[in-house]
Amino acid sequence: MSPPRTVAVIGLGMIGGSVARGLAARGVTVIGHDTNAAYLDGAVAEGVVAQRLLPTLEDIDSADIAVVAVYGDSATRVLDQIAIHARTISLVTDAGSTKRPIVAAAEASAIGERFVGSHPFAGDHRSGWAASRFDLFENEIVYLCPSSTATRTAVDLAQDLWTSLGAKTLRMDASEHDDLLAWTSHSPHAVSTALALALSEAGIVHRQLGRGGRDVTRLAASSPDVWTSIMLDNAPAVEAALAAVESQVRSFRSLLSARDAEGIRQRLSKARDWSGPGSTG
Amino acid sequence: MSPPRTVAVIGLGMIGGSVARGLAARGVTVIGHDTNAAYLDGAVAEGVVAQRLLPTLEDIDSADIAVVAVYGDSATRVLDQIAIHARTISLVTDAGSTKRPIVAAAEASAIGERFVGSHPFAGDHRSGWAASRFDLFENEIVYLCPSSTATRTAVDLAQDLWTSLGAKTLRMDASEHDDLLAWTSHSPHAVSTALALALSEAGIVHRQLGRGGRDVTRLAASSPDVWTSIMLDNAPAVEAALAAVESQVRSFRSLLSARDAEGIRQRLSKARDWSGPGSTG
Repeated sequence: MSPPRTVAVIGLGMIGGSVARGLAARGVTVIGHDTNAAYLDGAVAEGVVAQRLLPTLEDIDSADIAVVAVYGDSATRVLDQIAIHARTISLVTDAGSTKRPIVAAAEASAIGERFVGSHPFAGDHRSGWAASRFDLFENEIVYLCPSSTATRTAVDLAQDLWTSLGAKTLRMDASEHDDLLAWTSHSPHAVSTALALALSEAGIVHRQLGRGGRDVTRLAASSPDVWTSIMLDNAPAVEAALAAVESQVRSFRSLLSARDAEGIRQRLSKARDWSGPGSTG
Repeated sequence: MSPPRTVAVIGLGMIGGSVARGLAARGVTVIGHDTNAAYLDGAVAEGVVAQRLLPTLEDIDSADIAVVAVYGDSATRVLDQIAIHARTISLVTDAGSTKRPIVAAAEASAIGERFVGSHPFAGDHRSGWAASRFDLFENEIVYLCPSSTATRTAVDLAQDLWTSLGAKTLRMDASEHDDLLAWTSHSPHAVSTALALALSEAGIVHRQLGRGGRDVTRLAASSPDVWTSIMLDNAPAVEAALAAVESQVRSFRSLLSARDAEGIRQRLSKARDWSGPGSTG
């Protein structure tokens, strides 16, 4: 399949900005839009975005592929706008951390056959154009969740898009994705936040932490808006995962209360075994 | 104060090994012992340890300063051995993560006046001689907890020792130290472990995590033996901190259950504010 000539990127934060930078660095023409004028101006000034899209997105068909890199309800709104205007575009994809809502919205729209949901499992607690990097996706996983009616062409284009940015794609159903991510991403985020809040209420200040405490609380510094939306999109699955963590904390506390050295050692050993041989690097 | 000519380091794991490397690199003669022959042989072979101490430590007085860098009950045992033989040594210190037990043991021994407890708040989840580095303490905090009868000379020597390794010292009472560290270090460790165990029991494997999940669970890869001992030494304070974390997780779960977007956003914002402006780097 020949590489796309033009890709539209809507949303130029850390993720969308990195898609735009990565593609532009590989010779693809990137056209873009962001409601944040500073992000868009920055992307144009740096030569990453070659042309501004109209805010209505009515010129979306000047691209072969559209990447919707805004979060939460905005993603669904942008998708609806694209659906009104898209006639010739071959692939519409997104970059959100949950996939059920956006895939369902796409399936209910006129572009269902051309929609493949994407979740690049990359980035960190930072956000915005300033945090974007041309190599953000290299060697990272990107989950692909095609709509139920997606064409083979759309799926292939989505795969090629992320592969060209150095990522490894992993295809799964949107529900399966969201259930998995509740464990691997959303509950770690909530746990990091809960620890930060407990420390805050105990009067601990951030600079009193050592390297370990900084690692465990790092995600608490992420964008509250982005993460409120993720948590709500996936609330039941995150609740279940958090209940399991709560139960583990309670059980560890009981072992401490009983001064059960052997029980504590066993829990710590099991956690270390899970971390695996690669964990010491 | 003139720098010590000879420092004895007992225990050549990540922390003791790094003390030995750092001092040797600065021209101090390091003599050492470790019950793990591989660590001791490695330290001698690399020219870090100039001379082996007798396993009984009866030759401890050939050093000006002794650093006990073993953990848990072993630290108290080594301290007792030193107390039997030490006549001329000016400072005995340690490197453990809890300070109440070792300071109490020193106060009850013949070397109370020459004992200043140290807790270098450095290192990571790794352990052993192979993980030691000459610059491990640079710009890191070292807590100093003198025994109640410690001489001014002993305190000054302890301060100079760590300062010479690039660390910043912070002096506090052993109880105050242990209460603080329950929050800043021991409970983050337990939380990281609890999350790892919850993920493990849910059938998640470590390589399914992204960068964020890897950060939050990193401490779970630490030495179970070292941490069993730390957790038991400081059990009541760690229990209290964990109860607070548990309550935060539960409250976050309630907000999710109520789909309370504003409540969730407020908790995430408060956690981000606590992380501070330096947190985005």
